[in-house]
Amino acid sequence: MDTPDPEIVRTWLLDYQESVIAEMHAVDPKLAFGADRWQRPGGGSGVSCACSGGDVLEKAGVNFSDVHGIQLPASATAARPELAGRPFRAMGVSMVMHPRNPYCPTSHANIRFMAVGGPGESVWWFGGGFDLTPYYGFAEDAVAWHRAAEAACAPFGAHLYPKYKEECDRYFYLRHRHETRGVGGLFFDDFSEGGFAKAFGFAQSVGKAYAPSYAAILRKRRDTAYGERERQFQLYRRGRYVEFNLLYDRGTVFGLQSGGRTESILMSLPPLVRWEYNWQPEPGSPEARLTEYFLKPRDWLNEGA
Amino acid sequence: MDTPDPEIVRTWLLDYQESVIAEMHAVDPKLAFGADRWQRPGGGSGVSCACSGGDVLEKAGVNFSDVHGIQLPASATAARPELAGRPFRAMGVSMVMHPRNPYCPTSHANIRFMAVGGPGESVWWFGGGFDLTPYYGFAEDAVAWHRAAEAACAPFGAHLYPKYKEECDRYFYLRHRHETRGVGGLFFDDFSEGGFAKAFGFAQSVGKAYAPSYAAILRKRRDTAYGERERQFQLYRRGRYVEFNLLYDRGTVFGLQSGGRTESILMSLPPLVRWEYNWQPEPGSPEARLTEYFLKPRDWLNEGA
Repeated sequence: MDTPDPEIVRTWLLDYQESVIAEMHAVDPKLAFGADRWQRPGGGSGVSCACSGGDVLEKAGVNFSDVHGIQLPASATAARPELAGRPFRAMGVSMVMHPRNPYCPTSHANIRFMAVGGPGESVWWFGGGFDLTPYYGFAEDAVAWHRAAEAACAPFGAHLYPKYKEECDRYFYLRHRHETRGVGGLFFDDFSEGGFAKAFGFAQSVGKAYAPSYAAILRKRRDTAYGERERQFQLYRRGRYVEFNLLYDRGTVFGLQSGGRTESILMSLPPLVRWEYNWQPEPGSPEARLTEYFLKPRDWLNEGA
Repeated sequence: MDTPDPEIVRTWLLDYQESVIAEMHAVDPKLAFGADRWQRPGGGSGVSCACSGGDVLEKAGVNFSDVHGIQLPASATAARPELAGRPFRAMGVSMVMHPRNPYCPTSHANIRFMAVGGPGESVWWFGGGFDLTPYYGFAEDAVAWHRAAEAACAPFGAHLYPKYKEECDRYFYLRHRHETRGVGGLFFDDFSEGGFAKAFGFAQSVGKAYAPSYAAILRKRRDTAYGERERQFQLYRRGRYVEFNLLYDRGTVFGLQSGGRTESILMSLPPLVRWEYNWQPEPGSPEARLTEYFLKPRDWLNEGA
């Protein structure tokens, strides 16, 4: 039988949340994740796990939420306007890691499940993905990240990696800066290919690929020496992360507009951020190379190395 | 004659920009404003004057722009959808000051003029206002600020201050935080009351009230002793300023969407900002009093003292 079962997804997501926290804890034993359990007045609940002040991660957040309502907001279904106003249940795990060392990239991942009921057949889908935002770029890290993305997709069809790699580049794009947020990864939505069991398997595979890939990069870069120049550049570049999340990110904007838990939604924002009017990196510097080379859509599997 | 004359407005706005810079320079002689002249590919130009590293102001920006186009974007005329698609000219001066001392408030002001041509009669209006965002609240500062606002409006009608004071409270409101951005001031738009000469006079009167009122507060608070606690609270509260500008501010969002000059638009963002998950001020502290008392709409003219 291939009947969609939200309870199975919920159980897996809660386990998944714990597994990501455990993986980050293995990299950075000083991390002490709290767990805030919250209720949504409109229906549903969540567990927000956050911490700051680790040795490797300056700030980390891994959020689980499972909310429902009697009327799906129109803004939640840009692709399927006919579903607006129907009862829904949306659940997911979302995480963002802001490392201390500027040579370590920031990363984000999300796995979510949506079920929409009401008149006619019920509709459901998975969404999610992961993406990497370096301050100082390393082609080998981007290549390894995309190889892991490709490997996670492969068992479910060779068409999936190129499709969702491209969607990731398109989604995490700052139009007002003409740059991508980072070196990309995967971004999928409205995914129900092959029925519930297979689609759930795909979402799980993507989810499971995230933390080990990211942990490997953290282990490689965490001890790179840096000074005030790199730290200041990191704080400056974190401004772009804020700009993306508050101007473009659908999850953030929709969450805040629909009365989501503000502190959980904005957990994604970096701990310390700097803006400087009209700052330009020195030509030929690693800081200039970030935007010139890394923050453009690239076929990473055939790049660098 | 009472024919609207954009050139007179332009000339006044350029003088006004210089007068605000001069007023800030008198408070903080270390401020060294640069002047970046830019052209807009779609039509128009501007002068962005920014500086950072003053003794009193950590970052300051005073922008002039005068842009035109053949099709007014729909997002620019929420109140008058029938004007979308017509030729337009939009000019204004916009300024934001981020002080160093946490006992000094941040302030923002804007004076703008819009003319829309095309078939039928031409349409024009003024917009603008000013508002104050304290980190540590002082009722006497809020009262003085609102008295200056009232005095600027008075010669043009007793109905204007209450009306635009209320619009300011409504506009500078962070729904996801249930708090106002600051203690308000004035916010007006679509203003053409009494014809061009009178409406222009009102816009000038509001504009001229801003810098002296703000300078008086800076002079009063600039030497207040503070420590790490106050500095950290200031950086934390600056996060709210970023949230408002990127999530809600129509000028910012419209400017970025319509291909405005990104660095000029985002000059409003604070120099250094901090986010901390679920931080709560100590009950009864001045930090708690900010949100509990100051960041709610209040009838400041009859308050405090």
